[in-house]
Amino acid sequence: MAVLPHANGQEVGAGKKEAVRDKSVYSPVQASRLEHMPTLPAVLQGNFKLEFGPPSTAAGQPEEIQKLFPSLYGQPSVQLAKSEGPSYNVDQKLKVGVVLSGGQAPGGHNVIAGFFDYLQTHAPGSVLYGFKGGPAGIMRNKVVEITAEFLYPYRNQGGFDIICSGRDKIETPEQFQQAVDTVNALDLDGLVVIGGDDSNTNAALLGEYFRSRKVKTHVIGCPKTIDGDLKSAEVPISFGFDTACKIYAEMIGNIMVDARSTGKYYHFVRLMGRAASHITLECALQTHPNVAIIGEEVNAQKKTLRQVTNSIADAVCKRADMGKHYGVVLIPEGLIDFIPEIQSLISELNEILASQGCDEQGHWKSNLKPSCRALFDSLPHNIQEELLLERDPHGNVQVSRIEMEKMLITMIETELFARKHEGRYEGQFKGQAHFFGYEGRCGMPTNFDATYCYALGFAAGALMHMGQTGLIASVGNLTAPSSEWTVGGTALTQLMDVERRKGKNKPVIKKAMVELDGAPFKKFSSLRSAWCVEDSYVSPGPIQFEGPTADDTNFTLKLELGAPVSL
Amino acid sequence: MAVLPHANGQEVGAGKKEAVRDKSVYSPVQASRLEHMPTLPAVLQGNFKLEFGPPSTAAGQPEEIQKLFPSLYGQPSVQLAKSEGPSYNVDQKLKVGVVLSGGQAPGGHNVIAGFFDYLQTHAPGSVLYGFKGGPAGIMRNKVVEITAEFLYPYRNQGGFDIICSGRDKIETPEQFQQAVDTVNALDLDGLVVIGGDDSNTNAALLGEYFRSRKVKTHVIGCPKTIDGDLKSAEVPISFGFDTACKIYAEMIGNIMVDARSTGKYYHFVRLMGRAASHITLECALQTHPNVAIIGEEVNAQKKTLRQVTNSIADAVCKRADMGKHYGVVLIPEGLIDFIPEIQSLISELNEILASQGCDEQGHWKSNLKPSCRALFDSLPHNIQEELLLERDPHGNVQVSRIEMEKMLITMIETELFARKHEGRYEGQFKGQAHFFGYEGRCGMPTNFDATYCYALGFAAGALMHMGQTGLIASVGNLTAPSSEWTVGGTALTQLMDVERRKGKNKPVIKKAMVELDGAPFKKFSSLRSAWCVEDSYVSPGPIQFEGPTADDTNFTLKLELGAPVSL
Repeated sequence: MAVLPHANGQEVGAGKKEAVRDKSVYSPVQASRLEHMPTLPAVLQGNFKLEFGPPSTAAGQPEEIQKLFPSLYGQPSVQLAKSEGPSYNVDQKLKVGVVLSGGQAPGGHNVIAGFFDYLQTHAPGSVLYGFKGGPAGIMRNKVVEITAEFLYPYRNQGGFDIICSGRDKIETPEQFQQAVDTVNALDLDGLVVIGGDDSNTNAALLGEYFRSRKVKTHVIGCPKTIDGDLKSAEVPISFGFDTACKIYAEMIGNIMVDARSTGKYYHFVRLMGRAASHITLECALQTHPNVAIIGEEVNAQKKTLRQVTNSIADAVCKRADMGKHYGVVLIPEGLIDFIPEIQSLISELNEILASQGCDEQGHWKSNLKPSCRALFDSLPHNIQEELLLERDPHGNVQVSRIEMEKMLITMIETELFARKHEGRYEGQFKGQAHFFGYEGRCGMPTNFDATYCYALGFAAGALMHMGQTGLIASVGNLTAPSSEWTVGGTALTQLMDVERRKGKNKPVIKKAMVELDGAPFKKFSSLRSAWCVEDSYVSPGPIQFEGPTADDTNFTLKLELGAPVSL
Repeated sequence: MAVLPHANGQEVGAGKKEAVRDKSVYSPVQASRLEHMPTLPAVLQGNFKLEFGPPSTAAGQPEEIQKLFPSLYGQPSVQLAKSEGPSYNVDQKLKVGVVLSGGQAPGGHNVIAGFFDYLQTHAPGSVLYGFKGGPAGIMRNKVVEITAEFLYPYRNQGGFDIICSGRDKIETPEQFQQAVDTVNALDLDGLVVIGGDDSNTNAALLGEYFRSRKVKTHVIGCPKTIDGDLKSAEVPISFGFDTACKIYAEMIGNIMVDARSTGKYYHFVRLMGRAASHITLECALQTHPNVAIIGEEVNAQKKTLRQVTNSIADAVCKRADMGKHYGVVLIPEGLIDFIPEIQSLISELNEILASQGCDEQGHWKSNLKPSCRALFDSLPHNIQEELLLERDPHGNVQVSRIEMEKMLITMIETELFARKHEGRYEGQFKGQAHFFGYEGRCGMPTNFDATYCYALGFAAGALMHMGQTGLIASVGNLTAPSSEWTVGGTALTQLMDVERRKGKNKPVIKKAMVELDGAPFKKFSSLRSAWCVEDSYVSPGPIQFEGPTADDTNFTLKLELGAPVSL
């Protein structure tokens, strides 16, 4: 760890130099990936210049965004184009920082590698600091200097462990001042923020704060999240989505082959992805499950839990009529959030528990509205317990801890038991529950994510070097070979709208949810009834780094960009 | 499905021809694997002859085995050696069958492919039938003819879905007679049984039955099980173990990187593997977890549940002292079976529930012995429920349904809470539970499993063609390139011992448990204390089918065969 004056005047790190990671424990595949060199877009291979677009606006309420970002609002987005010579001061050495913010996503290390290699190539002698443990590292000035030797063992490797990440936000005036103190102490010319929607909003606020106070530090964001919900016309995909989906799809494909071979289990697979169902949708396109629930559709159709349950039970019955007593059902992590009646129940529970707690005898239940009470009573016992017990530090139900896959299995068992009694179902339903989440966030990035991230990092360096701030690195034309990818920066304010929170206007980059009239969902909905009854299972197999399939990308990206797909 | 006279004189299949599998839904990796051609051992590439070993004995109680196998006992095991010309009747066309028995394991399709290709090469014009749905398919004469076209889509693919599998056993005199009727009706020269210890015991009994009754059908077994517990000096490994471990290890490695990146979770991963802990041990060698519980050691040391819990809590405390509040713990599926006090509890529960059931008020508990009662009362509520509710059709607790990983998390939380109170632990313990099982049984086989299985199937054909029966195909020297592998057949009776069950002597192939003085466990135990405190995590990454790492095998095999390993 480099010895640096702390923002508060203390020194941190006590002179210790961060140890270079021990590569002797690398697996053969890890070791082989160290030597992989992503191909840069052609525009980044030589000299380049900026081409400016028209003044930018905002995704919504531009006047409000302008008030919140008086310095940055309206600045144009930019594209990089080839040029004869360099478009930056060739003598300038940069002092820059990078931070990883929020949940892990495969490829984060390659963003840092791309950024580092940009500096080595175009601004040799520059210094790159990594802030440790996310935005808290900025506030507390906890940094490590990223050298070639220190960085090397992380190239093309999964995880964020080079500097780790964190979920803190820079929010209060004191925290913004701490950030200023840190970047001043480090004499930073720029800061790259690698994060999701919230973190990139934070990056824009930081960029605004620095510019308005004449702090020289420029801020560039990079789009990260496996959930796939940070994207726009200019930012076609967030990194990590491709790898995570392929890891989950590998497992789902294996389970499908098992289901068909064994012939007696219904596998319910809940997939990470927070609010949005992009991961579930992509995994469905990759594997062709019998049922895949897309939360956005459930929400748009205002479905009840019973309706969701019954729709799956219908599929089980239809397959039983064909002699098939097995299947695979995909469920998005956020499903519970998409069912309006459950949302009502949870918010009532949050209030009751905050005010009076819940007594063992269950008297507290009389304070639930009748409809909520009926829903609560209809839930399986263990789910009732989870709703009452699993709460975050703010007292809210931890949605990701609720085992929706088990809840559905139990409720479908009950429903099928009733149907059997009525002679509407014959067979034996046996459910197996799975949750895939942590397995996918830190896998080694696919060739696509490795290359995309490397280009993002390299682009961030170029944008910063050419004096840009308040942009998110944007790499496009992603279904072409990487040499043909376009490179630019999109004004972060362009992606923003305003939400009213706690009586204040807050800028937000809107989460991109699954669009029911978008190409991926339309493709899915045109095929799902066939997938329900036929066994069109596809087993994507393990991610390959070499060979003919190694550079494939994902269906969501291809369909959204209008590229041909066969499925 | 071929139209064939049923054993009971009926026809099955009603003239339908089994549809050739639709390859249009194959993923790019699946499609690319269809073209993979495993390299046969050199001895199988040309002409070969049999070399006979000394008369065989048995693993235990040879006199009893001889009584049970009067026709087969004592026959020599064989090795294949190069010869000038063929050692079989070159004009003979064979009619043979194959059956998949028990749980799925990656590579089963390649055993069938190897067997088929043997017939095509050395006995062209032969006919291969696949019995559908496991041994029940033999008893009911449910078959499909396996043609080149029918087989092709399954080459190098995971799963058993070409003919599916089943867990029935051929046990009663009536069932043996059904098998005779079937093989007579089909005019079978031979039958290959692909299965685990039980299924290979069954294969030997079938071979004995056929020979003693002058039925011409010869029986050859093949060693299958991901659990790795069917092995001996002659059969170095069962197929599927290599692939399954690598799939689990990929996920574990990803989770480890996540744990280190996030810094706040302990991941408890329960791994399939039934009674034996080979999978857990191999995954530990591949990934270097902070703790891996090996059931055989727990059992040998007669550990209590509390001792197991405390040993993990100790590791958590030790790491907390170093500022590390995260980690990865591996647990074998069968752990609960290895803890003597839990076994006592379960057998008492089985009896009480069979005789009187359990009343809601819990009066039944007074029939437990005091030590069992105390243990039961100390268990988390949900585990108590699982012990009472999850029972198989015979009324026994379904061990694989007990979520031991969650049970340990809950118990460790309690233990750490107490230690915190006593000032012996500082930190916040957050557990995440995982179970990996079905994901690994049907993955596409690694190059090793694909090649090994192909050689096993080819060898089974050769042994049968040269008049052998009652052998298990044995391929050795497996750490050398596949061209140098040895090929033979081991007398199944050589692997057997006798157990007393329900007042009768039953032949059994003893499950090969983890040996505490074997090389894999010794390697593990020499390294585990370092792994506990250091983060020596290894991320094996996804299985590669091409490139420099594609032909690697596993540590257990290498260590048992004395090959060099670096870890």
